[in-house]
Amino acid sequence: MSTPSPASRRTTVRRSAHRGVYDRGEILAIIDAVPMCHVGVSTPDGPIVLPMAHGRDDSHLFLHGAAANGLLNAGVDIDVCATFTIFDGLVLARSAFHNSVNYRSAVVRGTATKLSGDEKLWALRRISDHIVPTWDEGRPSSEAEIRGTIAISVPLAEMSAKRREGDPVDEPEDLQGPWWSGTVPLEQRWGTPMPAADLTPGIEVPPRLEHMRG
Amino acid sequence: MSTPSPASRRTTVRRSAHRGVYDRGEILAIIDAVPMCHVGVSTPDGPIVLPMAHGRDDSHLFLHGAAANGLLNAGVDIDVCATFTIFDGLVLARSAFHNSVNYRSAVVRGTATKLSGDEKLWALRRISDHIVPTWDEGRPSSEAEIRGTIAISVPLAEMSAKRREGDPVDEPEDLQGPWWSGTVPLEQRWGTPMPAADLTPGIEVPPRLEHMRG
Repeated sequence: MSTPSPASRRTTVRRSAHRGVYDRGEILAIIDAVPMCHVGVSTPDGPIVLPMAHGRDDSHLFLHGAAANGLLNAGVDIDVCATFTIFDGLVLARSAFHNSVNYRSAVVRGTATKLSGDEKLWALRRISDHIVPTWDEGRPSSEAEIRGTIAISVPLAEMSAKRREGDPVDEPEDLQGPWWSGTVPLEQRWGTPMPAADLTPGIEVPPRLEHMRG
Repeated sequence: MSTPSPASRRTTVRRSAHRGVYDRGEILAIIDAVPMCHVGVSTPDGPIVLPMAHGRDDSHLFLHGAAANGLLNAGVDIDVCATFTIFDGLVLARSAFHNSVNYRSAVVRGTATKLSGDEKLWALRRISDHIVPTWDEGRPSSEAEIRGTIAISVPLAEMSAKRREGDPVDEPEDLQGPWWSGTVPLEQRWGTPMPAADLTPGIEVPPRLEHMRG
């Protein structure tokens, strides 16, 4: 339940250090709850940050894209930073200075390695199955499709998270003022699955999607 | 309605170029709709990407944080990349290879400048008022609070967006297969404002939050 994550100097939370999360299970839970992460690499042309789907197993984070994907190729064998954020709501204090946001955010830093063979297939399976199982559904991927895809892994080793929750923290002398103070939650929910316009009539929503009905 | 944004070589969409968005109004609408962006900088220690609240005016993006904020200080006078993503849902095709996500994502690249004086106050106001107006509500910020905050600006000049929407695009030969195909939307909605535990009894939810009631 509370395995400490091996946070490095680079992933130790500095600002508002009391909000740092180093429990491996908690960090992985944030990664699992986020449908897309934001991946950053340093390039000669400056930093670039793009949203990407992801998957993981116990030891590695997996990312994928078209073989021509610029960011993934730029990221191979160099440091990447993948950030996973759930925005939980607004924190509206009695003074603008103490306004804040409630959120959970995990950061994974490490060197990206390009995968091949069985490792690549494993990574693609884990990415495909991240939100709902899809790898073993439908028409299997062809060799050409897999060749046309790049998959990379980043060790789930150097990581940490940060979390803010709960009420605003106002100045004691502001507490008796006439101002409202509180939070406004932001909720994410899956809507009802929508069949494609070209779906063959009679094919029902598969059971694996039933729990996503709004 | 359709002012082209001055996308540079660095912000021209390369993968799935037909999904590129260069209309300034559309890009700004994505920036406005996202409560937090992901900001990346290159540091000697590797790239780092963190979630941040933001605001903007017609010409600049604004970010802020505590004066000791490592990423903001690292980003001053160097290139930053701010990415704004709305995840609209899953795209589940007849083959895993054609699974995708529906999303809108804007990218702003440029050099960050540290602000002072009236420019700093303007930036803080724009950030405070991004989701709901707060700067002119509550107890005004003190000089010490403003001194303890750093604000930076990035020109809204070099930017672009990318968008995917609609149904899966399956291979023609898969269309008659027995597999389900469609989308699962993800919806974000504000919940009911929750008063802080220490709120003085009798202070009602202010009208500016009424539209956020779930």
